[in-house]
Amino acid sequence: MAIGEIKESPKSWAMLGGDGPESYTQNSSYQKGVVDASMEMVNDGIMEKLDLKSLGFESTNDTFRIADFGCSVGPNTFFAVENIMKAVEHKHHAQFNNSPLSGFQVFFNDVTTNDFNTLFKALHSNEKYFSAGVPGTFYGRLLPRSTLHFAHSSYCLQWLSKVPKEVLDSESPAWNKGSIQCDGLKKEVTKAYSAQFQSDMNTFLKARAQEIVGGGLMVIIMAGLPDGVLMSQAGIGMYYDLLGSCLIDMVKLGVISEEKVDSFNLPLYYSSSKEIEEIIKANGNFSIERMDSLSHNIWKTSKETKIKVSVSGGRAVFQGLLEDHFGREVAEKTFENFETKLDDNFSIIDGATHEHIDHFILLKRNVN
Amino acid sequence: MAIGEIKESPKSWAMLGGDGPESYTQNSSYQKGVVDASMEMVNDGIMEKLDLKSLGFESTNDTFRIADFGCSVGPNTFFAVENIMKAVEHKHHAQFNNSPLSGFQVFFNDVTTNDFNTLFKALHSNEKYFSAGVPGTFYGRLLPRSTLHFAHSSYCLQWLSKVPKEVLDSESPAWNKGSIQCDGLKKEVTKAYSAQFQSDMNTFLKARAQEIVGGGLMVIIMAGLPDGVLMSQAGIGMYYDLLGSCLIDMVKLGVISEEKVDSFNLPLYYSSSKEIEEIIKANGNFSIERMDSLSHNIWKTSKETKIKVSVSGGRAVFQGLLEDHFGREVAEKTFENFETKLDDNFSIIDGATHEHIDHFILLKRNVN
Repeated sequence: MAIGEIKESPKSWAMLGGDGPESYTQNSSYQKGVVDASMEMVNDGIMEKLDLKSLGFESTNDTFRIADFGCSVGPNTFFAVENIMKAVEHKHHAQFNNSPLSGFQVFFNDVTTNDFNTLFKALHSNEKYFSAGVPGTFYGRLLPRSTLHFAHSSYCLQWLSKVPKEVLDSESPAWNKGSIQCDGLKKEVTKAYSAQFQSDMNTFLKARAQEIVGGGLMVIIMAGLPDGVLMSQAGIGMYYDLLGSCLIDMVKLGVISEEKVDSFNLPLYYSSSKEIEEIIKANGNFSIERMDSLSHNIWKTSKETKIKVSVSGGRAVFQGLLEDHFGREVAEKTFENFETKLDDNFSIIDGATHEHIDHFILLKRNVN
Repeated sequence: MAIGEIKESPKSWAMLGGDGPESYTQNSSYQKGVVDASMEMVNDGIMEKLDLKSLGFESTNDTFRIADFGCSVGPNTFFAVENIMKAVEHKHHAQFNNSPLSGFQVFFNDVTTNDFNTLFKALHSNEKYFSAGVPGTFYGRLLPRSTLHFAHSSYCLQWLSKVPKEVLDSESPAWNKGSIQCDGLKKEVTKAYSAQFQSDMNTFLKARAQEIVGGGLMVIIMAGLPDGVLMSQAGIGMYYDLLGSCLIDMVKLGVISEEKVDSFNLPLYYSSSKEIEEIIKANGNFSIERMDSLSHNIWKTSKETKIKVSVSGGRAVFQGLLEDHFGREVAEKTFENFETKLDDNFSIIDGATHEHIDHFILLKRNVN
């Protein structure tokens, strides 16, 4: 029974709400770059892999239903879903001799603590489709069975449902003392993070498999690593390590205890394409239609701008998480220190020999 | 085409958000009384008039979809939809030999400025159904064609989409100088308000007729007047007149101009059952299955409590509206004055020979 499948939300964090200078809305240019870079791949995927005939759009007046899982507060989600709609309309014209599609309904999903008020206000300035907000974790069922024709999730699935508990346990061989992330240097830590990622991805795929109609498509964009590259070797890993060092500084200053930092890790895992492929195949509900990585570069700008973007972007994404664990004041001081340290260490991060990648995965729901 | 039917939102007001001491959440006991009083009628309506067989629930695993139009921030909307779900499950058991329904999806609708964040946080504490928030005015299309099995709207449709412009126009015979409401004493004013109500109701019914499947039900609960009773004769009309007199006091004190008050009217219309019946019949998309009025009484309490509830309830509902027109400070002062005046004049309002009524209307969507 569908009702029984809805799970309790795990603890979850939202991007910084509102539309002020520190908000996610104003500080998601990197994520916007990801959306831009993916658009052509999405368009190609819809043109080549979406069969509106087999979905029944020839004979019925059905509404085409799209969901964006992990939409945050905009504006990136609007760019993404509007691009999908354009491509679907284009395909509909091509497949059915220019007859128009009857309409779209878009479900905007994010955790309950997401600022939906800001999302809805932005949405209604130029709405051309039926829209609904769906609150709740995407690591669980959110919509009725077989109701979606297209699912989208951009830059969310590297966020785990929780930090694996072993890495915070001083009794465990996977204790991640001295680091706030899965830096790839300790085998047991990596194993614990990887197992959590595998479990979360499988939960996500199982839930979406119920919601997406047979033949429906899903685009997943997520941060990851090239095969064989460790997080600590990539610029982004150095960036998180630097953030971690700012928390250690707080310990040295006597502002927080060492235990407080030891009990904090980022619920983030940057996977390789090989890992993802194995999880999808083991799950068995979707065929992989395309797997690629996005090429984009927001770093073609001055050092000052880079640092500013790195700090404000980091705030918009991580402030809620840090405040939740350390309180508002410590989070604030940490980010102030982070700004100075980024300035001092920027050439190291900027000159890293490796960089993370952004996976682009196009899946098709099997027809049962 | 469905897309073309979505209209621009008219100017709209929301109940006071959040869950603080002045919020609608904490000050909607009257509206809760309305929900309570309607529950049995809703249950009877579902048992007697909802035919799940003809809706196709015998052969399919379809989700039963409910929408609450004008849901505000809770908690009343949760009581209402959970009661509907229980009754539908009961009917399903009765009609199909105890086989369970596959599940429910509930669409919570209110204007874009409604505090959906508060709604969603309250919602997720004990969710047993798929839920979605739908932002936008219900005087327009909100959902795809034929997607609802049950629509509900409680205590909203007495709110007009706008104040009829003639009543604010000093050149018009319908100019409502000296009053902030349709008190029933000037024929032209009543005519203008009534025409606006008729137009809004028709727009509402047309939109819902598209969204509700043939055979689907709709419950409308709205404030109104007994046939032949004028607003100025009813306690509620006196209450609004007293609120208006507090604005006049602001003019006398030189805080605001007379023109400012003249350009303000409440977008509220209390209709008679006869008027509503005519509009529904003229619309032609629904059959009237039951038309009744709710009996309930929240006034069985001390004078102090009555006054407190009247002021705080008035704030939760009207504060946004007054702030929008007069600014925060004037709204605040007006409500302070209102509290004193209510205390002085309570026996008149409480002893009014007439009272407004709450219409209960059960409609069934025609099968085309």
